Amino acid sequence: MTKLLLATRNAKKLTELQSILDAALGASRVQLVGLDSVPEYPEVPESGLTFGENALIKAREGVRHTGLPTVADDSGLAVDALSGMPGVFSARWSGRHGDDRANTDLVLAQIADVPEQHRGGAFVCAAALVLPGGKEHLVDGRMAGRLLRAPRGEGGFGYDPIFIAEGQQKTNAELTPAEKNAISHRGKAFRALAKVIAKELT
Amino acid sequence: MTKLLLATRNAKKLTELQSILDAALGASRVQLVGLDSVPEYPEVPESGLTFGENALIKAREGVRHTGLPTVADDSGLAVDALSGMPGVFSARWSGRHGDDRANTDLVLAQIADVPEQHRGGAFVCAAALVLPGGKEHLVDGRMAGRLLRAPRGEGGFGYDPIFIAEGQQKTNAELTPAEKNAISHRGKAFRALAKVIAKELT
Repeated sequence: MTKLLLATRNAKKLTELQSILDAALGASRVQLVGLDSVPEYPEVPESGLTFGENALIKAREGVRHTGLPTVADDSGLAVDALSGMPGVFSARWSGRHGDDRANTDLVLAQIADVPEQHRGGAFVCAAALVLPGGKEHLVDGRMAGRLLRAPRGEGGFGYDPIFIAEGQQKTNAELTPAEKNAISHRGKAFRALAKVIAKELT
Repeated sequence: MTKLLLATRNAKKLTELQSILDAALGASRVQLVGLDSVPEYPEVPESGLTFGENALIKAREGVRHTGLPTVADDSGLAVDALSGMPGVFSARWSGRHGDDRANTDLVLAQIADVPEQHRGGAFVCAAALVLPGGKEHLVDGRMAGRLLRAPRGEGGFGYDPIFIAEGQQKTNAELTPAEKNAISHRGKAFRALAKVIAKELT
């Protein structure tokens, strides 16, 4: 069984990618390990100006520190009327890192006067695979939709309560995790990366 | 003497454009009037997604309401690392319209991790002239520079304390008004528009 590092401390992400890999490659072909299993893992500043740069920064550090083939992702919300922002700054848009409510309220305030036809946006995810020999792969996934004027729903996280994906009636925060994974930017990127992993590692 | 409406309630803007027009056309050729001289002038929502759209929206409304040839401008700060934002949202970036300190602090927090070589930006101004017959002109001016990590200086307004223009050592808030007008985005746009006004109106 091939071991693969997923450079995250997010257990949900680990489970999601593991199940996508199991479905794509057959169970027990690849075993994911997360950063919580790696002793003395350094803090890596996400200094990239694109999702792809940040995913590659994190995946390279994983290879450097562990010697394992490493997957990493970076994602966020790109609002059309904000020229694709908050983008790589999604988690700290209000200046308060990880404060979902403050970040969401700020985006709503910034585009308060933007009319319906210009309230489009997309969740975007870049996922990188870096191999110990230095070979690098980068894929991405998008979930297009539109921004509401007030939050709705209790599930999900981040900007989910103010976003309705194309073809949906519910916000991302009103979808079940399974419904959301089926259409999500991260799901798409991870499924694309599973094909790359199948070629490279199995 | 030709009368021209400048669609603003900002007296400093009125003085600045009047002196640029006097220098370009000769004194007493064009007399500017501001919105404070126009009774019952409506609030116009600046709903455009670009500076040019907003300048045209304001200038068209001036012609519609007064019948005078009308100049209007819209301007703001475009930060490279924020994909050109705050842009048309510059005055309300923090969600609190006109709160210079909150807006400035928010931009600084958002790009706190952005390294020196990516801290470029520009002040941008679009200026429109709309004539009663419906003819429209749109020009723009830019002042390129870079973003500091903390405010400096007491002059100017808006984002001036965190911006140093190319070739300057001082922030915009440390320059005298005359120094700033000589290099400013608005000065450049108004001087470009003065040439158009000279052709159209005198």
